[in-house]
Amino acid sequence: MTSALSNIKVIDFTRVLAGPFCTMMLADMGAEVIKIEKSETGDDSRAYGPYINGESAYFMSINRGKKSITVDLKSEKGKQIIYKLVKDADVVVENFKPGVMKKLGLDYETLKEINPKLIYCASSGFGQTGPYSKRPAYDLIIQGMGGLMSITGPDASCPTKVGSSVADIFAGMFSVIGILAALNSRTLTGKGQMVDVAMLDCMVSILENAIARYTGSGIDPVPIGNTHPSIAPFTSVKTSDGYINIACGNDQLWEALCNIINKPELLKDPKYANNHSRCEHMPDLLPILNEAMKENTSDFWLQKLEAGKVPAGPINTISKVIADPQVIARNMIVDLCHPIAGKIKVPGTPIKFSETPSEISKPAPVLGEDSDLILSELGYTKDEISQLRTDGVI
Amino acid sequence: MTSALSNIKVIDFTRVLAGPFCTMMLADMGAEVIKIEKSETGDDSRAYGPYINGESAYFMSINRGKKSITVDLKSEKGKQIIYKLVKDADVVVENFKPGVMKKLGLDYETLKEINPKLIYCASSGFGQTGPYSKRPAYDLIIQGMGGLMSITGPDASCPTKVGSSVADIFAGMFSVIGILAALNSRTLTGKGQMVDVAMLDCMVSILENAIARYTGSGIDPVPIGNTHPSIAPFTSVKTSDGYINIACGNDQLWEALCNIINKPELLKDPKYANNHSRCEHMPDLLPILNEAMKENTSDFWLQKLEAGKVPAGPINTISKVIADPQVIARNMIVDLCHPIAGKIKVPGTPIKFSETPSEISKPAPVLGEDSDLILSELGYTKDEISQLRTDGVI
Repeated sequence: MTSALSNIKVIDFTRVLAGPFCTMMLADMGAEVIKIEKSETGDDSRAYGPYINGESAYFMSINRGKKSITVDLKSEKGKQIIYKLVKDADVVVENFKPGVMKKLGLDYETLKEINPKLIYCASSGFGQTGPYSKRPAYDLIIQGMGGLMSITGPDASCPTKVGSSVADIFAGMFSVIGILAALNSRTLTGKGQMVDVAMLDCMVSILENAIARYTGSGIDPVPIGNTHPSIAPFTSVKTSDGYINIACGNDQLWEALCNIINKPELLKDPKYANNHSRCEHMPDLLPILNEAMKENTSDFWLQKLEAGKVPAGPINTISKVIADPQVIARNMIVDLCHPIAGKIKVPGTPIKFSETPSEISKPAPVLGEDSDLILSELGYTKDEISQLRTDGVI
Repeated sequence: MTSALSNIKVIDFTRVLAGPFCTMMLADMGAEVIKIEKSETGDDSRAYGPYINGESAYFMSINRGKKSITVDLKSEKGKQIIYKLVKDADVVVENFKPGVMKKLGLDYETLKEINPKLIYCASSGFGQTGPYSKRPAYDLIIQGMGGLMSITGPDASCPTKVGSSVADIFAGMFSVIGILAALNSRTLTGKGQMVDVAMLDCMVSILENAIARYTGSGIDPVPIGNTHPSIAPFTSVKTSDGYINIACGNDQLWEALCNIINKPELLKDPKYANNHSRCEHMPDLLPILNEAMKENTSDFWLQKLEAGKVPAGPINTISKVIADPQVIARNMIVDLCHPIAGKIKVPGTPIKFSETPSEISKPAPVLGEDSDLILSELGYTKDEISQLRTDGVI
């Protein structure tokens, strides 16, 4: 069986996170991804800790399955290498600040002259247009500007950043979607196009119903911790050794919960008689639940709740996620053997195809690992490659 | 100009969030999406508040651009309607618990007999396989089980749920990616396939470097608030009327910050001499920054920081996001006119195509809005449609 994107060749100028997450997904689904890196240092994130045997865990997590070639993009000979690569590529992805690729002579307008079928995806903090277009962006700044922090956190006084860099990751995922949709369009028209994805736009688009909610009520939503605004109890509860989540979507589940925690008296309290009144009195109810559940461990309660068919789940730390039977059964933790770092674990791919299974077979490349191979495929002789290396082009 | 997916027809069995978010994106990019709903009540989320003129803001946010037909999937005549629809469809999407579609006689094995080119995407909490496969899933439970809550929050004692339902939204986005990649594969092989996406798998795959970090160190990451683990100061700071984010990636920016907040003495303190020592002494440094900045408003500081070229940004509430000049310039807030709710605002689409622009032109359908049209296109006569309605099939 071939993979879903086995016919697709990607020239990848991306660095750090949003762009590399995009091209990682393309590589996972079988695209050939050729990562263009600065000679000597490569992708900035090769220098980001933590390290395993001196290799960046950050870099290795999101660059598996890619090839690496070093190219000095400012040199004329370097540009020639790119032009040759682009000639028969399907996709270019870059996440420079708007304007940088143009300065290098590698912008869409230039590259489409070489290859009109090219799909060119530019991922940036604020997009190719608009008043903030040229500003630098960081995940933290975008999570703040995009509204997500204003609705995340234990309470209204404490807006909170999501613990993984979701502003980058969403931008990477929307970039994949844009590229694949443009590929579909190309099968109809024969023509490529440019796809412009901004981290800030992506944040706005995943606010879910918060925008309609604000429009309807005129009231800005605020962080409300882990409780649900309109279902109760649907929240995190403290146990003797941590927290668990419980989700009682109806009165039967509420009754089952009260019996499991040995608080049948709550069932007679009119304050908690139905979902509406439980929501209203959640500030009273949560401490009662915390008090009752702190008598035992998370595991104890989860077993009881499962037996009683009350939807519940642990708040797993990373070590527990990795050991979870469902996560293992779904092949969501993959062992890769890196030539320097040795055995490392990376997340698997969450898209399970029946006919074109994804395969994560190759660890992240060491810097310039594939330079010679790629150049010889482009027709460069051994001597020419040596000369390019001597000249600092690769 | 046509849209990127103008050739794609989607039969949409999804409800609530993960599935509808997927088919919303397909509709935004020009696919014809026919939403199959229960008669009388429709998608469960039509009953979720808040409401605008009695219409669910939740439902309207993520069902724009779709058509709605009511079908009783348990009736034989209802199944016949689906079989006819599937015959020339490209994609089926469903997010029932595994097993439900099989019971209805609408599983992939059945539908591919009718249409071997069909791409069938099943989105579920835990996936079609594995020990938890049949369990119900809620966003809160999955955010907890998948590890994201364990690394989000103000400190290690307070694991925190993300304020929007990202477990659902990620599953919806990975589903779109799977569908579009399968469409690419179909152009090569002529064959459809099944795509199986689980919310839990998606959560694991967006943990970014947390898994490699744990593998390398053996230490479980914990929530660390809004500060960066290895760059300082790169955090949220309290002002007189809220919080702002600042991001000082190097010593020059640190110096600029100290001058702006009128604390030049910090520059002489060896505790804050370089990035490494600032990270180490962040517990001392953050209160000093909070103390200095609470003297003035967020707007005051943001202007000063922008003038001094220190990367910074607001923590925008939803009302501020909607009014942001960049968000407006990028057309990320779209006004739709719903026949009952009136004018509502929804997020725009974050994928900007140069040749096949997305267009959000149609509000969410009222229940069964397109039943007659769709059925007559399938060849049902007016009388037959009346009879189906009398029989409670539609």
